[in-house]
Formats: sequence, C-alpha cells, structure tokens
Amino acid sequence: MRKVFQAELHQVGDELIQIATLVRAAVEKAATAFENADVELAEDVITADARIDFLQTELDERAIDILARQGPVASDLRMIVGALRMSTSLERMGDLARHIAQLARLRYPRPVAADSLVATFEEMARLDTDIAGAVVELLDTRDLTHATRIQQLKTRINELHRSVFDAVAGPDWQESSARTADVVLASRYFERFADHGVSVSRKVTYLVTGEWDPDALEGRVGADDA
Amino acid sequence: MRKVFQAELHQVGDELIQIATLVRAAVEKAATAFENADVELAEDVITADARIDFLQTELDERAIDILARQGPVASDLRMIVGALRMSTSLERMGDLARHIAQLARLRYPRPVAADSLVATFEEMARLDTDIAGAVVELLDTRDLTHATRIQQLKTRINELHRSVFDAVAGPDWQESSARTADVVLASRYFERFADHGVSVSRKVTYLVTGEWDPDALEGRVGADDA
Repeated sequence: MRKVFQAELHQVGDELIQIATLVRAAVEKAATAFENADVELAEDVITADARIDFLQTELDERAIDILARQGPVASDLRMIVGALRMSTSLERMGDLARHIAQLARLRYPRPVAADSLVATFEEMARLDTDIAGAVVELLDTRDLTHATRIQQLKTRINELHRSVFDAVAGPDWQESSARTADVVLASRYFERFADHGVSVSRKVTYLVTGEWDPDALEGRVGADDA
Repeated sequence: MRKVFQAELHQVGDELIQIATLVRAAVEKAATAFENADVELAEDVITADARIDFLQTELDERAIDILARQGPVASDLRMIVGALRMSTSLERMGDLARHIAQLARLRYPRPVAADSLVATFEEMARLDTDIAGAVVELLDTRDLTHATRIQQLKTRINELHRSVFDAVAGPDWQESSARTADVVLASRYFERFADHGVSVSRKVTYLVTGEWDPDALEGRVGADDA
C-alpha cells in the first residue's frame, strides 16, 4: 500500500517535470517567434499550449484523487498541495508564452519590438528560457542552487522590465502608440513568466527545507510592484 | 467529531467571504483613487493589501491542517481544495487593486487616465467593483445567478479592454508614450482583476454543481487571449 502510494507521489513529480519541460520549449519557441517574426513557430506555441493545459488538469485530478484515497499527512501532504500550486504556476507560464507568441502573430510580418529594444527583449527572452530550464532542473534534482539562480535571473528581468518603461517614457522614443502598447505588454508578459518561475522555485524550496523565506512573499516583490 | 469538522469547513467558508469583502473594499477605493488622483486613498489600499495577504496565508494553513487531520473525501475535499484555489485568486485580486492604487500614486497629482479614456476607466472600475461584490454574494449564498452575472460583467470588461487598445492605436490619440504605457497597464490590471473574479465564480459553480463548464476553461477565454 505504502509502495503504491510512493509510486503515485513519484508520478505526480514526474508529471510536473513533464509540464515544465513543455513550458521551457514553449517559451524558447515563443521567444524565437517574437524575435524573428516567425508566424509558423508562433502558431506552434499557440497550438501546443492546449497540451500543457490538458496535462495540468490531469495532474490536478490525480493529486486530488491521491488526497481522497490516501489521506496523506506531513511532508507527503505538503508535496501534493505544493504540486497543485506549482501546476497552476506552470500552466500560467504556458499561457504567457502563448501570449508572447500571439503578439508575434498579431504583428506579423512586422516584428513586435522596436529596433531600440531588440537587444533588451532578446535578453529577457534568454533569461525566461534560462528560468524555465532551471525550473525543470530544480523539480528534477531538488538542488536549491537552481532556486537561487532563478531568483538572480528574476532580478535582472526586473531591471530590464523597468528599462522598457524608461525607454518608452524617454526623449528618444519615436515609435507609434500601438507599438508602445505592444512593448509594454510584451515586457509585462516576460516579467510575469519569470515571476511564476520564482513562485515554483519558492514552493520547491519550501518542500525541501520546510521553511518559507519571509522576505520572499509572493506577489510583493519585483517589477510587479512598479 | 463530525460536528467539529463541519464547523471547521464553515470557518474556511467564512474566511473566504471575509477576504472577498476586503478585496471589494480595496478595488472600490483603488478605483476612486485612480479616478480622482487621491494619493491618500491610494496609500490606504496599498497598506491594506498586507491584511489580505495575511488572511490568505492563514486560510491556506487552516485548509492544509484540515486536510492533514480530517482526511476529507468527496465534496468536503473538493471544498477544501477549492478554497485553497479561491484564496489564491482573491489574493491576486488584492494585488491588482494595489497595482491600480500604485499607478495612481506614481502619477499623482496628475490623473492616470487620458481625458478621452476617463469614461472607459470609470466603467471598468464600476464593473470590477460589481464583480467583487458579486463574488462576496456568490460565496455567501452559493446562488449561481451571481456567477452568471460575473461572466456577463467580464464580457463587457473585455470589450472595454479592447477599446483601450483601439483608442491608443487610433488616429486621435495624442498622448505621451508614458501615458500610453500607463493606460495599457491600467486596462490590463482592471481586466485581470475581473478574470480572477471569473475564476472564483467557476470554482464555486463547480462546488455547487460538480461540473466544470467545458466552454469556460480558465485562461483560455477573454481579452487575455488578445
């Protein structure tokens, strides 16, 4: 019985990794579609998001089924509740990758980013892809150095997110209002993606250490507060 | 034992209503601060958000404690898991009300909205306040007519959110890029607030009927997809 239960918990962990791997692929493709105005790649991301949504629903049902049948306590219970929350964050990361791809598709054949912000968005895209990769590693290995790395990458994302607002409000900005709207939203999507990555990393940290970082309460730090 | 358990479930329900009531007050004040460039009211909202965050954490701990001690099944389990998810949505609604207040404070003494969009934002603010009020009623009464109403209000929010983008991209828009960025973000905050209200309403609907609306999968409808 205990063995079956452990196998079920393990499967939930594997499914989280599977979803995170799809999210990483999604943001990597979305970033490329965004940079290169590649409408076919954008379509791929948009279509593939349904798979992430499906897997999330499946994982949630499995987790609730385990709660009902096994009545787990202590660290097992924490793990199941944590999985329910992480799956929500991962699903949201998939949505945000899709939003980035949708912006690319909407503006095709024109690129979304103004020339003066191409380098900024390339860095944001690389950071988000790195964060998604670190989330996969963290879920797989439980090695908290990945969590620390995710926090560091997020700090840089916040700087870049603010720099987009500074650029748009600055004297050299000559772009149309439509493009201003696009870059502000795109920057917010990249920043939100990273923030959900941080959420996942905090939940894993909590599962490993049993402690929340009191300075790191969600939704109360970072560029989101701007 | 059963009686104690029912009392505990009831308390979780009451705490959800309490948080939702604070969220309604937050968005109502944030909207007024936003419209009237009222920096003191904005500060109130920003300060009060910590209380919402605290209550959410408390509710989550209580819910997990109930899972551990009582091992609920069937509809009781669904209710507890639903409460964990609804508290996340409500906390996020509190954050978004705070973001709206922060925008008002950032631009004080200037109002955030351009003159041509004042009426649009007033309507969005009223709709968000109505949604927050309907969420309180829905949690309290479980009367699903409130859920239907929330969906309808959200439909109108989506129209207004799109109209902000149309205005900004239109020929008559003469505002600065900084203001363009502000109104795009503000519109997104109002729209996201409403979307989380819809999330809560779907969870209550699921608890009452036992069925998800297959056409209403979250994150896959509405202006968020634009």
